[in-house]
Parts: sequence; structure tokens; C-alpha cells
Amino acid sequence: MKAIVAHAAKDLRIEDREIPTPGPGQVLIRMQTGGICGSDLHYYHNGGFGTVRLKEPMILGHEVSGIVETLGEGVTGLQTGHLVAVSPSRPCQACDYCHEGKQNHCLNMRFYGSAMPFPHIQGAFQQWLVADAAQCAIADGLTAGEAAMAEPLSVVLHAAGQAGDLLGKRVLVTGCGPIGLLAIIVARAAGAAQIVATDITDYTIGVARQVGADIVHNVAETPSSLQDYAAGKGHFDVLFECTGVAPVVASTIPALRPGATMIQLGLGGDMTLPVQAMTAKELTFKGSFRFHNEFFAAINLMRNGRLNVRPLITHTLPLESSIEAFDLASDRTQALKVQLDFA
Amino acid sequence: MKAIVAHAAKDLRIEDREIPTPGPGQVLIRMQTGGICGSDLHYYHNGGFGTVRLKEPMILGHEVSGIVETLGEGVTGLQTGHLVAVSPSRPCQACDYCHEGKQNHCLNMRFYGSAMPFPHIQGAFQQWLVADAAQCAIADGLTAGEAAMAEPLSVVLHAAGQAGDLLGKRVLVTGCGPIGLLAIIVARAAGAAQIVATDITDYTIGVARQVGADIVHNVAETPSSLQDYAAGKGHFDVLFECTGVAPVVASTIPALRPGATMIQLGLGGDMTLPVQAMTAKELTFKGSFRFHNEFFAAINLMRNGRLNVRPLITHTLPLESSIEAFDLASDRTQALKVQLDFA
Amino acid sequence: MKAIVAHAAKDLRIEDREIPTPGPGQVLIRMQTGGICGSDLHYYHNGGFGTVRLKEPMILGHEVSGIVETLGEGVTGLQTGHLVAVSPSRPCQACDYCHEGKQNHCLNMRFYGSAMPFPHIQGAFQQWLVADAAQCAIADGLTAGEAAMAEPLSVVLHAAGQAGDLLGKRVLVTGCGPIGLLAIIVARAAGAAQIVATDITDYTIGVARQVGADIVHNVAETPSSLQDYAAGKGHFDVLFECTGVAPVVASTIPALRPGATMIQLGLGGDMTLPVQAMTAKELTFKGSFRFHNEFFAAINLMRNGRLNVRPLITHTLPLESSIEAFDLASDRTQALKVQLDFA
Amino acid sequence: MKAIVAHAAKDLRIEDREIPTPGPGQVLIRMQTGGICGSDLHYYHNGGFGTVRLKEPMILGHEVSGIVETLGEGVTGLQTGHLVAVSPSRPCQACDYCHEGKQNHCLNMRFYGSAMPFPHIQGAFQQWLVADAAQCAIADGLTAGEAAMAEPLSVVLHAAGQAGDLLGKRVLVTGCGPIGLLAIIVARAAGAAQIVATDITDYTIGVARQVGADIVHNVAETPSSLQDYAAGKGHFDVLFECTGVAPVVASTIPALRPGATMIQLGLGGDMTLPVQAMTAKELTFKGSFRFHNEFFAAINLMRNGRLNVRPLITHTLPLESSIEAFDLASDRTQALKVQLDFA
Repeated sequence: MKAIVAHAAKDLRIEDREIPTPGPGQVLIRMQTGGICGSDLHYYHNGGFGTVRLKEPMILGHEVSGIVETLGEGVTGLQTGHLVAVSPSRPCQACDYCHEGKQNHCLNMRFYGSAMPFPHIQGAFQQWLVADAAQCAIADGLTAGEAAMAEPLSVVLHAAGQAGDLLGKRVLVTGCGPIGLLAIIVARAAGAAQIVATDITDYTIGVARQVGADIVHNVAETPSSLQDYAAGKGHFDVLFECTGVAPVVASTIPALRPGATMIQLGLGGDMTLPVQAMTAKELTFKGSFRFHNEFFAAINLMRNGRLNVRPLITHTLPLESSIEAFDLASDRTQALKVQLDFA
Repeated sequence: MKAIVAHAAKDLRIEDREIPTPGPGQVLIRMQTGGICGSDLHYYHNGGFGTVRLKEPMILGHEVSGIVETLGEGVTGLQTGHLVAVSPSRPCQACDYCHEGKQNHCLNMRFYGSAMPFPHIQGAFQQWLVADAAQCAIADGLTAGEAAMAEPLSVVLHAAGQAGDLLGKRVLVTGCGPIGLLAIIVARAAGAAQIVATDITDYTIGVARQVGADIVHNVAETPSSLQDYAAGKGHFDVLFECTGVAPVVASTIPALRPGATMIQLGLGGDMTLPVQAMTAKELTFKGSFRFHNEFFAAINLMRNGRLNVRPLITHTLPLESSIEAFDLASDRTQALKVQLDFA
Repeated sequence: MKAIVAHAAKDLRIEDREIPTPGPGQVLIRMQTGGICGSDLHYYHNGGFGTVRLKEPMILGHEVSGIVETLGEGVTGLQTGHLVAVSPSRPCQACDYCHEGKQNHCLNMRFYGSAMPFPHIQGAFQQWLVADAAQCAIADGLTAGEAAMAEPLSVVLHAAGQAGDLLGKRVLVTGCGPIGLLAIIVARAAGAAQIVATDITDYTIGVARQVGADIVHNVAETPSSLQDYAAGKGHFDVLFECTGVAPVVASTIPALRPGATMIQLGLGGDMTLPVQAMTAKELTFKGSFRFHNEFFAAINLMRNGRLNVRPLITHTLPLESSIEAFDLASDRTQALKVQLDFA
Repeated sequence: MKAIVAHAAKDLRIEDREIPTPGPGQVLIRMQTGGICGSDLHYYHNGGFGTVRLKEPMILGHEVSGIVETLGEGVTGLQTGHLVAVSPSRPCQACDYCHEGKQNHCLNMRFYGSAMPFPHIQGAFQQWLVADAAQCAIADGLTAGEAAMAEPLSVVLHAAGQAGDLLGKRVLVTGCGPIGLLAIIVARAAGAAQIVATDITDYTIGVARQVGADIVHNVAETPSSLQDYAAGKGHFDVLFECTGVAPVVASTIPALRPGATMIQLGLGGDMTLPVQAMTAKELTFKGSFRFHNEFFAAINLMRNGRLNVRPLITHTLPLESSIEAFDLASDRTQALKVQLDFA
């Protein structure tokens, strides 16, 4: 079978691998779709990010879906032919954090396509995958592409959980890439009274409006847009920060009400922040990182029609066109979520 | 002008009153619409409820809207001609509870149409009303009937706030009168993954389905409906209890997941509850009582189209037909919210 | 070795059992001390409680400590000779509730000395015990008796966690058996501004005062004591209810402030409660059931001197005197925690 | 009477003022004690801080106590001769934030000794003060010096409230000036399992140990002390950050557990923070600013002996020695809280 393997920056290869065999409690999956995520792009372009570096070849990919082909011994609840979304999150369920219900911080996490430990955790961009049955969420009724969106949607549902009740709240979303757009979709579904979104390309803010933003600002054109929300000590109750760019974060402070919650989703290294103003306003700045049980909630909310992620899937390319797909996914003026077709 | 005055059980009169004059910070309102609430019905049918008893004639009504006619001295933010919803909640802003932001527990509350203190707090079913500008929420763009729904909607938004984040949650609503139906509407808008509703008349559960319940059960016909949700220690994350009937509450316990939240909205005197089971499941049973800031949120969410309460307003009768309206509002097989037209 | 086995109501026997052998990840423990809990007494006196009934002989006991004698394969972090408290809580770490960090609601829980499933889960009142290393908290520096208090202390720490921040709060404790007294100790350590305790025997309320209650009331003598706290809509922020007696619970309602939290620790079957008053005050009534990670926190807080449970251990009897010990533990006029000495 | 007036940086004068007369609901207070706070020192040394600048002479001081001399019309609950602590916080109780119970963010706040609005809000370092009765907390049983500590203690109680339940938590305190030391005292009283404190002078960390820190580190001598707490993704559950120094904040990140809460008390302008690591750990960074109802809780907790702030009051100087007192208060190698004696 074929797999998409990152060897180093700009060295992405389609390689042959053995088709694996499912053990007890596992299933063999004929993979259908894989979405390209920002971290995949970091490996592709830079061979890693921050202190995380590729030290050996690694199969990329962690936003995937496929069809159950074979059941391992003792598997119940899944059947051959089911479309499943496969959660890339594999915590140990034995360390302190797993005991506390914080599995996303598991000390022994084996998250698909991560170069953090060595040997690396191989990813899921491959034509056949063996996964634990417990990782699989039945996605019948969805397209394979929607099912593969369960992972980024889980990230955003986890972030929304960090923000608490959004009903009647005024929400600001900075950055309208796939994560920011999902934040808009989720905030809208959670009853936000008003959603304002900012980005620097007309393409993305156009989609932002389409998926539920009430007001959009192209801050490349009008950098001071958020100053209009500063009266009375600020306007927004919640910020979903999806850029990771310090000046963007800083620009939101005057627009946030005292006691507002800033959820940081964008990863951006060190940032210089106006901490005095943040303190005087008693803002809560909270990082959100991956997810755990939200994966099954994500599939559920798509299956029952509460959330519609289809407008975000802008391109689907065959496995053979992987490099083209990675390049396309890097261009925020014409593409949002780019998916690979493994079938 | 005319006002609707309860003198005793079954003694409701339309009487003449002087048109009042607005003081500083107040406005005179030409009243348009008044919705009949369960507590109005208690005064009408029984002369009170529990230990609360009519001891002098009292104007009923606290779900009202009207048009601003005259501005008192120093009023800003409102103008003549504005349609406004008038909040019946008038806390003192000086007692301990007001200082804590729990104005609904104000020690000196003057809530319209309450026989709790003596002299009673007169209500708002009258053709002209003087109110503080701070009580008025601009409702332009809504009908007067919708504006008058801000009060019961506030009650439910407050209850939803007690329940916390509803996104992706499984919600059970027992009782599909106006409050239960609003709970369905709000839970739906807040992103509940599934909403199940129960009642004992086909009329109300028909509307429940219409406004967003995924599954409805007529528990008069199939009393054991909730037993289907008991597997795996229960199914629902949140209960909005809108009947105040002890056996109904008890019947929900097996269907609730460990750690679930039960929001008690129905008022029902003493209840015998299965506390051992509630404790073993660590259920949270939480009363919800009135509201405060939610009033302005309610108007906002209707104005921007996030919530639609129109299906609940089943009848509108002229002031002269008040007694007919009160009788109609008491019949849950053909009416939900019955409103009076004061214009 | 000897074990204490309940066969039926009033049929408690000291029987011989095989000394078990530790498997991988397990340790063999030479048991030192076992505390008698209310549920042990229910099996002893009544053969069960509620619908839970003895259907086969069951070793009792779940409040235990001992000395590590042998390490099974692969055990790290424990050494021969360590005094350990052994957590009776053995969740599966695989079901939905374990994934959510609610292990106390595990669908496959194997809690020592429980007749809930069949075959029953055998308890820990035995001279030798094999336990998973993960169940053992090192208790060096404590007496074996204190170490055996980790279990009831965990129950109360879990309850305190349900109540939230106690710093500066006014706390009411109803019932001054071991759980109520631990609630006083914990509330005191957590910075409660005032602790008021009630019971019906002078013996227990004497100890209540000794361990930190600021005010105590013998409500057998002065049944209306709590009415003194009703002014201004109530006085207490938090209630730890440790009687399970409905009139006791009802008597607290006027003394609780609006928005107060009632933590139900006592298990008492059905209760008739003044739900209308509870709703109007927006009280939160929350069951607390067992514990999970709190077990290690309990040992830690005793070892570093933050909590002192020694005043509660009133009697220690040898294994041979088990029946005398069970009878003594049932008499709240002269005994609180009665422990068995297995050494 | 005399008052202490800041005219500009390094221009502090003792001036004559008229003794004021209490209006309805007010009291005249013969002032006893005033504590010098960090913001007073900023006005003294720099004429302000950040964008806040002295534009006219301003009486300093907001940590004060005195004895009630005269009651204005309608005052109840206070009597002549009462020692009272006077809250400097005077919110309007009418703006949106006051309605939400966030009075510390009041849009019309008149906090003693603040140059933020113009005309400035005059402070309370004067021999006679007229205050609203509602600002006064009866402090009988405390010394006047302790009573004057209610204000900084309120700041820390508010911060502790932001951090939530501290029982059994591991707490790190960076910076052992008066605020940091109060954080230690409060964390200890709230049942923290372990308190570790850092500072750069042996004098302050000596007091830190005295008031309840379990472990102290002089990070001037051993800058890498916190690295010892980094194993297993970190050790501390809560940070009280009392320096406002960016590298100090950054140095705590590896020592904090995933999901930990960082309460920012120190005000330090812009800071460069390791946001990527903070996000990956899902840290909550929360500013804490002033207080509201905590003032009365502070007095209460001192009066009932739960909190002892006396070790922090290192110097008391007469009004005439104000400049010496301000200089002394600026020297963290020999003084902590320096108070002025107005009597």
C-alpha cells in the first residue's frame, strides 16, 4: 500500500508500506480521506516547528476516515462496511492526567503523525490503517470528507468547552483559516448573540460570512477595525484567537469586556502581550490544546445536522497529487481544507 | 385608563385607574400587549399560591410591552415611539444580594404583580404604565407580542445559564407549557445534540416537536417512556423540569447520566424525591428563579433572529375579554401563551 | 489467614482464606488496620441496604492499611516495608465515565466489599491482601490507623470538591458521625469563616467542637436552633448534609442563603423536601458519592500535617473482637470510628 | 486637619484641609492608620504609572482605618466609637458591570487616591474622613493597623477567588512583598497542600517561610530553582504571580501542571510570554484587579482568627514622618507593610 512520508523539509514522498494486520480489539480500515492540517504543513515546509523536529521518516496525517474492512478478535459495536472517523488521540489511560480526565495531556500520548517523541508516532495518511476499535466513531450518513473533519472540529469543540456557555455571548474570532471558521460554525451553533471575525484575505472572510459571522473585518485593509468595539470598556465576551500573531492578540484587548475569556488556539511561540491591560480587565487567557471525548461529540453533531462543515472542504485531490495538495493547502487565498482521497 | 385587577379567587375586574406621570429617569408607556403567566392564573383561580395570598386588590401582569409616549426628565437612550419590553424586575441595587450580582434575590424586590409583600406590588396589565427607563429594552423590529415574551424567555435563559454549556449535550424537558417550550427553543439554539420532551397532551407535544424537540413522548399514554434511556446509568446530561410534579421528577432519575444537572423550573410545593439514587449518581438539582440581566439578552436574541418565540403565542384577545383570556390560558389542550391587547 | 465475612444479617464470621499471590503490577500487603464504615454496619445489621442485598458470603471492609511485604513483577515506586493505605476504588479506566474522569461512576467498578454486582466484590478485612500498586498510597509517617482513615477522608474531600471554594464561607454540617466530623475538619482546613454543626447526641457534638466547629447545636434538645439563621433570607453558603434524614434536610432550608450549595453525603432513600422553597432560593442540591483521585490527596494532607483525623479514631480492637467492634461502631453515644487491628 | 498630598514625582506634602461634614448615610471618621501601597509609591516616586499621571494635587492612600466619631442622618448598624476599616472602593451600583456583580470594573468607580479620571479621586490619608456607612466594616477586636490591612487582604482574597478551590492544591507564589505574603497566608488558610515561594531577597523569603511557605527559593542566588518542579509536565496547580516581571512569569511555565491557573497580581506593562508552551499546557492566565465584597470577608476572617496579617506590618510611623515612611516602604530589604499613624 501507499503512505505519505515526510523525510525532511520539502522532502515528502509517497512510499510503499506493508498492509498491517489487526490485533485483538482492533480493526483494519480501508482509508478513504485525509485532511491536511497546519502541523502537517509545518513538517512539509520546515521539517517541524519550534523544538519539534523530524529525526526519522514519518508518515503524516491525523484527520482521517475510512471503511472498516476486517474486525480483530473481540471487537463489538463496529461492523464491516461502516464508515468511521478515526481519532488520532491515543492516551495511555493509566497516567495521572488520564486519571484526571485530561487525556489530551497524557504523559504517554501516541498522537498520529507527531515527531515529539522518538521514535516518532507514525501518522494515518496511508491506504490501510489498523486502529483500536475505541478510536473509531461510526460516521454513516456523512461523506468520508466530512468524517475526516471530525478531528479539527474536535479541536474547536474542546476550545468552546474551555470558553464555557456561549449562549447570548458576543464572540470575536481572529483568523479565518479552517480552525477559525470552525470556531464561527461552533459559536453560531452554540447560540452566540453576535459573531465578529477578522482576517487579512477577502477569500477567507468571505467564507466566514457564509458560515455564520455577523460582521467581518479585513484587518489588512482596516487595521483599526477593533477599536470600534472599545467603548464602555469593551464589547466581546469571548475571543477565539486563531492566528498566533502577537499584534493581533494585542489588538483585541481594548475590544474585550472585563472578565472576558480569550481562547488561544493559534500556536505562535513567544508573544509580547499587554499584560497590564489584561490584568486590569481581569481577562482570562486560556490555551486550548487538542481534545479527547469531543471526537465522538463532533461526529454526532455532524450526523444529526447541528453542524455543517462542508463549506470548508474546498479541494479533494488523489493520493498521487499529494505534493500539489500540500502546496494548495498552504495558500490561504484560494484554499481552506484540502483533503486527500486514498480510495 | 383601564387596568385588570384581582380582588380574590375568581374575582377579576376591569377597573378605572388614573394615568400616571413619569418622574425623573422614567417614561410613560402606552401599553400594547400583556402575556398571561402561570402566577397570574394562580391569583385568578385561587387568590394566590402556597403561603402567598391576595390581601388587597392587585393589578396583575408582568409580561408586557408598549410604546414610549413621554420621556421623564434626564432620560437618554429611549425616544418617543420606541416599542419597548418592560422588565418587571425592580431590585434595590443596595442590599447584599444586589451587591453580589444576585438581584433576583433582592431583599427589597418590587416585582410587578406580586402579593408577597404588603402592600402588594401592583402589576402592569394597564393601558398606561410609568416605568424606569432602565427597565425598558428597545424592541423595534419585533411585534408587541414577541416583545412581551421577553419575560418568560428571560426566565428560561436564566435557567439555561444555571445549566451551563449546552453545546453537544443531551437535554430532557419535562412539561411542554410555555416555559418548557421555551426551554426547547433555547436548548436548540444553544446547540444541544438531542432534545427529548415529555408532556401529557398531544397538543403541547405537537408544538414541542415543531419548535425543535427531536423526540417527544406523551407520558399519559406511555408512562414508562423514560425507562428506555436508563441503559449505561442513563442518557441525559441536563433536565429542564417544568412540571413541578414529584412523580415526573422521580421518573427522570434513571434516565439521567451520573453528574447530570436537573434545573427545576416548575414550582410544586413539597416533593418526595428518590434522594438515594440522586446522591449515588451525583446529580445536581438546582432551582431557577426569575432572572435579572437576561431580560436584555432575551430581547437581543429575538431581534437578531437567533430565537423565534412566535409559535408559542396562540391567542391574542382584547382587554375587554380578559376573563375569557384567563380561562383560555388555563386550558393546555388548546392554548399556550395567551396575550391581551391593550392598544 | 483470617478474614471477616458477612453471610447474612447478624451473621458475621471470622473465616480462613488462602493467602493470595501478587501478579504483575501488584503487591502483597500484610494488613494492619481496617476501619468499620456505615455500609459495613448495614451488611452486618440488615444484610444490605435499599435494593442492595447479600446473596453470597462477602468479606467486608474498604478502609484499610498495611505494610508492603512482596512486590509483584514490574512494580516501581513501592518498596517492601512501606506503610500503605489501599484505595478500595478499582475503576476499569476504559468505560465512558472513566474516559470522562468520573471514575467513581465506572460501569465496571470493583469497589471492595460491595454486594451490588454478583458475584460480590470481596472486601479487604483480611490479614493479607493483594492489591494493584496503583491502589497504594505510601503513608510513612502516619500511624496505620490514620492511614486507614484515608478512605472516609477521601469521601469528604470529594464532597468538598463538589462544594467548591470554602474560603470565607459559612458552613453548616448536619450530623456529626465520622463523615460529618471529617466535613468539619476539612471545612476548617479549607478556610471556612464559620462552621456550625448539629447532631442529636452530646457526645458527637462535643467532638465536633473539639475538631473545629465554631458553634454546635443539639437539635434533639433545641429542635428549632436553625431558625436563628433565617434572617435576611438565610446565613449559610454551604451545607454538608450527613444524616440522610428528610426533616433534618428540610430544617436547613430557611438557614441557607439564596444560591447556597447543599452537599448530600448521607444516604437516606426517598425524602420529602420543600422543593418550592429550594427553587425560590435557587439552592443547589448535589449528591456526593465516593471519590477517585482524592485518595492520594487525603494521604498527602495528613502526612504534611494539614489535616488531623486522630480525634475521630475512638477505638481499636483486635480481629478476634470483630463482632464487639461492629456493635460498638453502631453506638453513636460512645464511639466514632472503630478500627480493627489485623497485625 | 492634615492630609498627605502628592503634587508630582518626589513632591509629597503634608497640607491642611477642612474637616468634612457627613451627609445622610455617611459617617465622620477620626482616622487612625493608613498603609502605604505600591500605587502610592508609584505616585510618590514617578508621579504615576503607565498612562496614569498626576495632573493635579491628590491626597494619597486607600488602606485605612479609623474610629467613628459622628453619624450622619439615617445611619444604622454603626455607632460612635466603632473601629472601622474603610473600603476605598466606591462603585456606582448603576452601570452594566455593577448590575453584573463586577463592581471592580464599574464605569464610574471612585476609588480613593486614583489619578485615572480627572478631577482625580482624592485619597484617605487624612486625619478626618467622611465615608458612606456602607463602606465601613466594623473591626472591633482588631488593632487599627490590622484593620488597615483589610484592603490589600481583599485584593488577595479576590485573587484567590479567581483561582478557585485551593484545598489540597500545590501553590507557587512568585514575589514576597506584602501581596505575595498575603497570598501565602491565604493559600495556607485555604488548605493548600504545599506552598512554594520565590523572591530575590533573603529578608522577604524569611518572612514567607514564617507565614506559611513550605519551601522558599531565593532566585537571585539560584535562578533555576523552578526547574526542579518540571518533571511529569509540572508540579503546581496554581500560581500567584506577584512580581509583574516577564522572565519570572516565563520561568514558572515548566513548573506548572497542564491545566494550571496563573493569577496575575503584579502589574508590569507589556510582557513577552512563552505562549506556545502556555497553550500546549492549556494554562489559564487570569488577571486579578482590586475587589468588591471581599472587603467585608477580609475583616471577618481577621476578626475570627482565621487569618493573621500582623507579621507583615513591619513599621508604623507618625504622620509627620510620611516621607521617611514612603522611603522605607520602598526598601524591600528591610520593610514590608509600612503604616502611618494619624491618631
